[in-house]
Amino acid sequence: MEIKPVKGTRDFYPEDMAVHNFILDGWKQSSLRNGFEEYEGPIFEYLQMYQIKSGDEIVDQLFNFTDRGDRKLAIRPEITPTLARMVNQRINALSRPIKWFSSPRLCRAERPQKGRLREFFQWNIDIIGVEDVVADAEVIFTALDYLRSAGLGSDAIKAKISSRKLLAAVLTSFGIEKEKLDVLYPVLDKKSKISEEAFREMLSEIISSTEIIGKIIKMMNVGSPDQLGDFVELDAETQGAVDEVQRLFKLLGEMGVADYCVFDMSIVRGLAYYTGIVFEIHDAVGELRAICGGGRYDNLLQQFGGPEITGTGMGMGDCVLEILLRERGLLKDNMPTRQLDYFVAYTDENLASEVVKTTAKLRTAGLGANFSYKSNKLAKQLKQASEQNAKKTIIIGSEFIENCEFAIKDMQTGEQKLVKADDFLKSLDNIKE
Amino acid sequence: MEIKPVKGTRDFYPEDMAVHNFILDGWKQSSLRNGFEEYEGPIFEYLQMYQIKSGDEIVDQLFNFTDRGDRKLAIRPEITPTLARMVNQRINALSRPIKWFSSPRLCRAERPQKGRLREFFQWNIDIIGVEDVVADAEVIFTALDYLRSAGLGSDAIKAKISSRKLLAAVLTSFGIEKEKLDVLYPVLDKKSKISEEAFREMLSEIISSTEIIGKIIKMMNVGSPDQLGDFVELDAETQGAVDEVQRLFKLLGEMGVADYCVFDMSIVRGLAYYTGIVFEIHDAVGELRAICGGGRYDNLLQQFGGPEITGTGMGMGDCVLEILLRERGLLKDNMPTRQLDYFVAYTDENLASEVVKTTAKLRTAGLGANFSYKSNKLAKQLKQASEQNAKKTIIIGSEFIENCEFAIKDMQTGEQKLVKADDFLKSLDNIKE
Repeated sequence: MEIKPVKGTRDFYPEDMAVHNFILDGWKQSSLRNGFEEYEGPIFEYLQMYQIKSGDEIVDQLFNFTDRGDRKLAIRPEITPTLARMVNQRINALSRPIKWFSSPRLCRAERPQKGRLREFFQWNIDIIGVEDVVADAEVIFTALDYLRSAGLGSDAIKAKISSRKLLAAVLTSFGIEKEKLDVLYPVLDKKSKISEEAFREMLSEIISSTEIIGKIIKMMNVGSPDQLGDFVELDAETQGAVDEVQRLFKLLGEMGVADYCVFDMSIVRGLAYYTGIVFEIHDAVGELRAICGGGRYDNLLQQFGGPEITGTGMGMGDCVLEILLRERGLLKDNMPTRQLDYFVAYTDENLASEVVKTTAKLRTAGLGANFSYKSNKLAKQLKQASEQNAKKTIIIGSEFIENCEFAIKDMQTGEQKLVKADDFLKSLDNIKE
Repeated sequence: MEIKPVKGTRDFYPEDMAVHNFILDGWKQSSLRNGFEEYEGPIFEYLQMYQIKSGDEIVDQLFNFTDRGDRKLAIRPEITPTLARMVNQRINALSRPIKWFSSPRLCRAERPQKGRLREFFQWNIDIIGVEDVVADAEVIFTALDYLRSAGLGSDAIKAKISSRKLLAAVLTSFGIEKEKLDVLYPVLDKKSKISEEAFREMLSEIISSTEIIGKIIKMMNVGSPDQLGDFVELDAETQGAVDEVQRLFKLLGEMGVADYCVFDMSIVRGLAYYTGIVFEIHDAVGELRAICGGGRYDNLLQQFGGPEITGTGMGMGDCVLEILLRERGLLKDNMPTRQLDYFVAYTDENLASEVVKTTAKLRTAGLGANFSYKSNKLAKQLKQASEQNAKKTIIIGSEFIENCEFAIKDMQTGEQKLVKADDFLKSLDNIKE
C-alpha cells in the first residue's frame, strides 16, 4: 500500500539534510559565539498555553488533539510560550541575564505557500532580564552576524527597525486613544503589503479623521527619528523613545553593522505583545516575506504566571532563508552528504576478512571508513569511493598477499603509495577522534 | 496564568541540553564514521501509515488528530515507516546500498515509566538492499561502536543475538505450524521478563503438547547455534540459518567486538516484521530495558507499496541510554553549557563603547565572546567570565586610556599580559572560523 507524505511537510533526503544541517549549524555557531546557551522543549504543550498569548483565534491554526487523559494538547506553533513557561518555573534559580537560543521544529495548520510550510524550523534567540536597549542591539547583531557569515551583505538584506514605544507616543500625540492602539497595530503592520489606497481604507475603519490618517501615513515614511519632530511635539515620553532608538543605532554602529540597519516606522509587527524596539530583516529586493522578526516584550513572563521581567528576542524561519540563500548562490549545489577518511577496497574475495578488519579498526580509531558489501572489480570500488567522497582508498591486493602491504591511494591527486599494513594499523592506536 | 508541562515530556534547560547534545553528537559521529548518511522526515504522517506495519491496536498508542482537510494524522511513534515511504518514493534514483541514519524525535501516548517517556529521541540506522549478513554485522558493530566510544565496555553491556529464520526452522521442526509462529513470537519475546511458570502458562495457551513446550524452553537456553543439533535434525533450511548466524559471529569477531556479543535464542523481538537476524543490547546487570534492538526485515518496503528489497537496522532510544550513562558515571556532572573564547570586561563606564566594539569584532572573527550588560565592578565581571567558562578575559581599563592597551587575562592560569589594542584587533582579521 502506497502512502504519500502530508502536504506542507518535507522529507529530508541526505542531500536535503546536508542543506538543513548547514543552516542549523550556522544558527548554532552564531548563537554560541554571541554567548547564547541552547534550550529545547516538548513538541506539544497544553493548547491553553497558546491561547494565552495569541487568543482563541490561534486554535484553528494549530494541530491540536485530545489525549487519553482528556488533556487538550497542541503541536507547538512557536517556542516562545515554552520559553516563558520554562523561565518562570526556575525564575529564582536561573542566573541573569538569561541569554538562550533554540532551533525548534514547529507546525502550523495553514495552507502551504512559498516560504511558508506547515512544518518548519525556526531559530529563536532571547535575552531576558535586561531593560537596557543593549540587549535589543545584541539580538539584532546576532541575527545579522549569522546572515553575514552565511554570505549576505548589506546590499542583500536590511534590518528595518522601529519602536512600539515611539509609535505609541506619536499616535497618542495625534489624539488617538491608547485603547485603540492594539486594534491599530495589525493594520499599520499591513502598510508595506498593500496599496496606499487600501491602507487608507483600512485606517478609516478605525480612525474617522482624515487629517490624522494623513499624519499617520506621513509619519510612517520618515527616515530617521529626528524627523518626527516635524510632526509632533516631542514631550518627555516621546523624546525618551527617540533617545532609545538613537542609542540602539549608535550601538549597532559600534558593533559594525550600521550599513545593514535602517529606521522604518512602518515596521510594527502584528502581535499585541511587543512593547519596545521591534525589527524585521528583509531581503533588499523585497520580494520575499521577512527573513526574521522580533522585538521587546515586557509582559510575556507575567502573562504565563511569572514575575514582571522584560525580554527581547527574535525568530528566523528556515524556509524563506533557504530560498534566499539558494537564489543568491550561497548554498553549494552539491553539499557532501558524507565524507570518509578511507574507503577500503580489495582485489580478491579471499581478502574480504582483511577489509572488514581494517575498516573496523579505522572506525574504532574515530576515522570515517566504508567498504563494498559486494566483491566488485577494483575500478567499481574506486568509483564507489569517489561517490562516497573518500579522501583516501586503501587497496588490499597482491602486495598484501606477498609483503603484507597496503596500497594507499590519495583520491584527490591519484597518487598511490605502499605502506606496511602492521605499521599503518599500529599508527591508528595513537589517533583520538 | 500558570501552565504546567505535559507529563511524560521533557524541558531541556541548558544543562540538560548539554547532555542531550552529547548523546546526539555521539550518535551522529558514530553514524558518519561508519559510513551512514543522515535523513529526516516530518513529525506527523497519515495515521494509516502506522496501521500498515503495526495493525489497528497501534492507534491508541499514538497522538492522532484530524486536520482541517479531514485528514487523519498522527505524530510519529517511530521513523521506520517514514524511511520505507521515502526509499520507495525514489527507489530507482537512490544508489545502493542505502545506508542511512536519523535521530528523530518520537512520541507515544503511553503511561510514562522509568526509561520510557511519551516523547523521546531514537537513533535509527538502516542498511537497505544488502542480503548478505555483513549488513547485519555492520548495524550491530555501529551500535556497539557508539556505546564503546561512550565508555561502555564489554563488562557493562552485551549484544544478544539470534535469528528469526533459525527460530522458525527449529520451531517448525518441532511440528509447530508456520501459521502459529506470528502468535508465538510475542510470547517467546516475554521469556526473560516473566517467571518460567508464567512463561509455560502462556505457551500452553498456544501449544497443547507439554513435550514441545519443554523442547522450546530447553532450546531457548542453548549457548551456541551448534548445540541446536542436540534438539533437532539440522535439515538444509535449519543448517542454512545456523551457518548465517555463525558467519555473523565470525564477522563481529573480525570487527573486534566478539567480547560484546552472545548468542541468545530468547531474543525474539515482539514485532511480526523481522525475518532474519534479530538482536538487542542490554546492560550487563540486566536491570534496565533494552538499550537498543533491531534486526532484518525483508518485506517492509513491499508493505509500503515498494519493491521486494531487504533491509536491516536498529533503534536506540535516549532515555534508557541516559540512565545507564549516568549510573556508570559516563556523563560529566557539569557539562559546559557554553564556552567562550573571550569575556570582555571594563573598569570604567566611559569605556562601554570599546567593550561593545571589541566584543563585536571578536564575534565577527568567529570567536565566542560576551560582556556584561551592567557596569559592574571588575571582580564581578571576572566572576561572570568564569561562570560563562571563558578562556580569556580582555580587561579594558586604565592601560587603555593611557596607552591604548588591553590587559588579557588567562582564566585558567590567572596570568595577565598587556597587548596593543590595535595589534590585537588587527590580528583578528586573519582568523577564519
